[in-house]
This record gives sequence, C-alpha cells and structure tokens, in this order.
Amino acid sequence: MDIDLPDVVAEVAAQFARYETALVSNDVAVLDELFRDDKRTLRYGIGENLYGYDEIMAFRAARSPVGLMRKIDRTVITTYGRDTAIASTLFYRESVPGKVGRQMQTWIRCSEGWRIVAAHVSIIDEPKVA
Amino acid sequence: MDIDLPDVVAEVAAQFARYETALVSNDVAVLDELFRDDKRTLRYGIGENLYGYDEIMAFRAARSPVGLMRKIDRTVITTYGRDTAIASTLFYRESVPGKVGRQMQTWIRCSEGWRIVAAHVSIIDEPKVA
Repeated sequence: MDIDLPDVVAEVAAQFARYETALVSNDVAVLDELFRDDKRTLRYGIGENLYGYDEIMAFRAARSPVGLMRKIDRTVITTYGRDTAIASTLFYRESVPGKVGRQMQTWIRCSEGWRIVAAHVSIIDEPKVA
Repeated sequence: MDIDLPDVVAEVAAQFARYETALVSNDVAVLDELFRDDKRTLRYGIGENLYGYDEIMAFRAARSPVGLMRKIDRTVITTYGRDTAIASTLFYRESVPGKVGRQMQTWIRCSEGWRIVAAHVSIIDEPKVA
C-alpha cells in the first residue's frame, strides 16, 4: 500500500480546495457534485445524521447560506493507494468563539472522479492544552 | 471499484465487533492494536483532537474506564475495493439521555491486518424528526 503518493495527494487536495470554496460560498451544485450519488453515502453533520445521497442533497438545499465563512487549521490529507483518501481539518467561525469544528471526509476515486463517500462534522469546546 | 464484496465486509465486520467489545470493556490493548501505528493516524474524539498514534495511545491509557457501556444503532459498514472500509454507527448511553453519539471510522487493510487510520466521534442533541 503506497501512502501519500504525491500525484494522488495533489488530486485530492485540488478537490478538497474546491469543496472548501463551495462550502463557504454555498455553491450547492459543487457540494452535491462532490458527494457520491449513492444510498450508502453518509454524512454526520453538526446537528443532523444523513443517510444516503438524497438526504444530503435535501439538507444542502434547505440550508441557510448565512454565516458559513470559516478559517481552517491543521488540515491533513492522507492517501492510501491510488483510490482512497482521508481529508481532515479543524475549523473556526467568528460567530462561535471558544469552539473548534472538526471535519473528516473519506474520498474514493470513482469512475466519475473523486467523491466523498462518508463525512463527519462536529463542533466542540476548544480543548484545554494539557 | 467493487463495493461491499461479501468476504471483505465480513472481515471488517469482525474487526468492528472486536473494537466495540474492547471499547465498552476498556480493553486498551485491543483498542491500541486496531488503530494503525503511524503518525498520520487521526482521531477526533468527543472532547479532544488527537494527531498521530502516540496521542491516541496516551488518551486511551489515561481514560476513565467508567461509564463506557453503550447501545449502538444504524451501524453501516461499506467497503470500497478490497482494502478500504468505512464503519459508521450511532450510539446511546444511559448517562446522557436525549443525546446521540456518532462514530465514523475509516479502515485500511495494512500488511499487519485491518487498521483504523482515521476516526471521528461526537455527541449531539438527538435531532428532531422533521
């Protein structure tokens, strides 16, 4: 298993960047494109548990486009082989001081391109440094 | 890309079951075994963000073994090819009524066996049914 092949990391990093831009600008078409259209696609969100692509699309369509801007930090993209990647990042929003968000996505290279098949987003109190 | 090949799903399901048993009984040796020993292994926990296997091991060693019992629900294991799987489950603890936990793990088949390379656990208020 080759980990972090540079060309594979570059491909996923480009799609991750597209996703981030789409998220903060609420570009629903790109967000919908980058999740795999399949009933097995899963997204645990900040306040909801979405099973299957249809539930994810419905959530995006209904979401308020206000206050999505965020700063990301400690982003890690790791690829396993040529067809699997995990992209993880912390994020911060000015509207929720003292909190840190965590976003983790598993990307799979599908016939239609790189797609997110599972994602989990949550927000917690900023951990105290030990 | 073959999705959900039965023999691959069965392999991962067996390891997932081992993990769950180890978790609720605080069997730290098995928990440590099932996370990949690598600095790129990531675990976003209920109240902490752990980067690398060493941070994960330190967290396990320091954790209170009290109150880990839980009931899991809506578990989904999906495999992509022969070497990648995502295991996702909701969970409930009697000690936190009205809340639902979400656990999502990405498993990779390594030379040493199936290992978790990324995990994200969070607890939210039980979403209202729309």
